[in-house]
Amino acid sequence: MFVIIVYDTEAKNCVKLHKHLKKYLNWNQNSVFEGIVTKSQYFEIKDILDRKRAEKSHITLYIMENEKLLTREELGEARGNVSNII
Amino acid sequence: MFVIIVYDTEAKNCVKLHKHLKKYLNWNQNSVFEGIVTKSQYFEIKDILDRKRAEKSHITLYIMENEKLLTREELGEARGNVSNII
Repeated sequence: MFVIIVYDTEAKNCVKLHKHLKKYLNWNQNSVFEGIVTKSQYFEIKDILDRKRAEKSHITLYIMENEKLLTREELGEARGNVSNII
Repeated sequence: MFVIIVYDTEAKNCVKLHKHLKKYLNWNQNSVFEGIVTKSQYFEIKDILDRKRAEKSHITLYIMENEKLLTREELGEARGNVSNII
């Protein structure tokens, strides 16, 4: 499955979440990760996020079966380690 | 078509982009909009973003034909005006 994760949290917590998410996913830009994971990895990620996120955070996880269902366009200079071609 | 737009830019420019994007899309959380648009609206949005974004910004536009291809899960208290059910 292909997931996109965007998080809205305080700066200190951003650093913590980034540290955990980069083990599973590709960093795209500030507070955005994406990548292909197995179902069990997805549940691990969700569990980590739920435990490590700050109380006043909000995180959205977009899930689709196949990354080919999606097109990505970018404006500005690429920041992360995500390929332009999905 | 269904689009998710995430932007990484300076605070002042965030406010400006928010002002424009809310005319077309639903605000989900800080720097994240999503919604159903026509192809011509999509091109309008992309054109606006390209003109109004700060030089050092980075914006990702995820596009899919149908919002039913996607599942959304959220952690934390909902912030925006997006329904939990896609």
